[in-house]
Amino acid sequence: MTATNPVENLQALIRCPSVTPAEGGALTALQAMLEPMGFVVSRVTASEENTPDIENLYARLGTKGPHLMFAGHTDVVPVGDEAAWSHPPFAAEIAEDMLYGRGAVDMKGGIACFVAALARSIEEKGAPKGSISLLITGDEEGPAINGTIKLLKWAADEGERWDACLVGEPTNPDLLGDMIKIGRRGSLSGTITVHGVQGHAAYPHLADNPVRGIIRLAEALMNPPFDHGTDNFQPSILEVTTIDVGNPATNVIPAKATARFNIRFNDIWTAETLQTEIIRRLDAAAAETTLRPARQPLKYEVVWSERPSHVFLTRNEALISSLSGAVEHVTGRTPQLSTTGGTSDARYIKDYCPVVEFGLVGQTMHMVDERVAVDDLETLTRIYQTFIEQWFANADA
Amino acid sequence: MTATNPVENLQALIRCPSVTPAEGGALTALQAMLEPMGFVVSRVTASEENTPDIENLYARLGTKGPHLMFAGHTDVVPVGDEAAWSHPPFAAEIAEDMLYGRGAVDMKGGIACFVAALARSIEEKGAPKGSISLLITGDEEGPAINGTIKLLKWAADEGERWDACLVGEPTNPDLLGDMIKIGRRGSLSGTITVHGVQGHAAYPHLADNPVRGIIRLAEALMNPPFDHGTDNFQPSILEVTTIDVGNPATNVIPAKATARFNIRFNDIWTAETLQTEIIRRLDAAAAETTLRPARQPLKYEVVWSERPSHVFLTRNEALISSLSGAVEHVTGRTPQLSTTGGTSDARYIKDYCPVVEFGLVGQTMHMVDERVAVDDLETLTRIYQTFIEQWFANADA
Repeated sequence: MTATNPVENLQALIRCPSVTPAEGGALTALQAMLEPMGFVVSRVTASEENTPDIENLYARLGTKGPHLMFAGHTDVVPVGDEAAWSHPPFAAEIAEDMLYGRGAVDMKGGIACFVAALARSIEEKGAPKGSISLLITGDEEGPAINGTIKLLKWAADEGERWDACLVGEPTNPDLLGDMIKIGRRGSLSGTITVHGVQGHAAYPHLADNPVRGIIRLAEALMNPPFDHGTDNFQPSILEVTTIDVGNPATNVIPAKATARFNIRFNDIWTAETLQTEIIRRLDAAAAETTLRPARQPLKYEVVWSERPSHVFLTRNEALISSLSGAVEHVTGRTPQLSTTGGTSDARYIKDYCPVVEFGLVGQTMHMVDERVAVDDLETLTRIYQTFIEQWFANADA
Repeated sequence: MTATNPVENLQALIRCPSVTPAEGGALTALQAMLEPMGFVVSRVTASEENTPDIENLYARLGTKGPHLMFAGHTDVVPVGDEAAWSHPPFAAEIAEDMLYGRGAVDMKGGIACFVAALARSIEEKGAPKGSISLLITGDEEGPAINGTIKLLKWAADEGERWDACLVGEPTNPDLLGDMIKIGRRGSLSGTITVHGVQGHAAYPHLADNPVRGIIRLAEALMNPPFDHGTDNFQPSILEVTTIDVGNPATNVIPAKATARFNIRFNDIWTAETLQTEIIRRLDAAAAETTLRPARQPLKYEVVWSERPSHVFLTRNEALISSLSGAVEHVTGRTPQLSTTGGTSDARYIKDYCPVVEFGLVGQTMHMVDERVAVDDLETLTRIYQTFIEQWFANADA
């Protein structure tokens, strides 16, 4: 039982160059930490046409309930400009109490701390009553097709059921203990196309300029605001992320214009009610838009992107208070219960059990010189250990 | 003196494949028509870095004033889908009283008729008192850098001065005699760039979306109308011809957005006053646009395209009435005196002498199966002959 040191755990993981979709030895290194602790480890390779095969890992300690899952990923984003790193991205060097390496905070660090926390708890108090599982994917930073979704389904098909889940993604904006994520906004994207009538700029009466239409539709999507936020969520905000016409000729009125948009939405909406509202806004703007000349009413098409992310909010008090209490106990800081930020794999897990997220400070994630304070690794390990023990104590009660 | 038949003249010209920048034998064929009539022909090759050399032709008959110029071009646009032509584009075949070929109306037909008209006039009444020149470029359909501008300057440097000019471009929308052009709107283009702050769509408070800004600026350019037209001109109409962001990622707020616009403007404006008005509109819209979040006021750049086309209106009564009278005399139709449509090389000639435009019916120009009614060639020849004789008669008076 040697995995009690989160720094050593993290160094072992960082030294595996597991840039998505490569396993890079990272899951094997994790397996080597877990098996001596008594985990039954399954390596699950997922495949789908036109995507690379992805190795994932599912490990369970114990056979009875209650059952706590820890979820995360060992894959990392590319190093970027390797020459710009002050320490090699896969060397896991420590300098001035900082540990450098790709994945240090996102999120090999979270895994390293959770494994260390569990190893310490087992050393000190024996294996928890109930079960603990690690659900670790190698496809979180990539297309995410052969990752958490398939691994959850595989495990559920094997009969696995969970009572709660902690995702170890970096959730703290500035200081360890700042923020727990208890939900996430949904995300919905679409593409609008307006067809006009191409023509010469000198003969506008023979043409219909679709730029005029796409501007009106984009404006209607951006204003007024969709809402002003809820108790647990920020306002839903729509961004028109691109408008493209691609007309190279100054003297030509183009035939077509497209716009794409993305909206991060709160629990006032579902993906379906939001689609209805967006169509209502587009229809209203189209009806009010007389293209000059009024040869035809403004027509548009909207194509929704596949797989909207659904909004969710976790209301499991035992789970949230175990985690929040552990953070307060170790750091003296009361974490904000937040639903901000982008999507995470928690959106898939929430269909199986209540899920919360807490990990390291995210400031250097995806950047050159990604790094973590060695002190933070120790602190997070202590938080995770306290959380594990508290959660099982609450679950016992 | 054999050039009295406009059909034969045109067939000779069409059979020269003079797609810009190729001379294709067309100027040589024209020279062979003009020299027997007594013209002194100069072939002027113009060059400029990064553009193909272009052959042009200047021919003068007579040495005294008054001096009438006929201007046009022998270059033609590409044939497009040659297989789609019902007659080969350079064969000049006649079928059902239509003469087929690239350049039939734009504008080898105009040249062929003018040469025939002059040949007939000389046969019937002798050479005109004064001088007649042909200023013919091979670079009207191309970049127009080595064409009319340089040929005019070359001729002026040689001491040439003109009292009036007729451009033989196709000016009639439907029927021969419909329309004389007595001026042209100006044309001004520019590119607007809005710089935002790139960011993740889930963290809009850390970003500034430039799409929001470009939409407001584009809207401000399109509304309200710049004017409602003048006695001689259509309203000035601005078209935003393209908006481009080129952001491939749905979850990213882009850094930059650009829009291009083109305005065809009437004699209320000059290119300079219009630029001032456009900047005023952009500044006003930028000042009213608070990008969310208001990290900075909206900033934009505008880059004007080189060489705006200046608006012009020809007010030379002798010239206009000679041409209008000739059209009425031959066709019985009163031509509209118009300033509609795109720009033409008349915009360069207007700096040297009063200029009007009249030619064939433009319907098939630039299209597959470009063609002209054989009857129209005869009618236009008669109009041109009447015009030439009337103009010199008026000039004598």
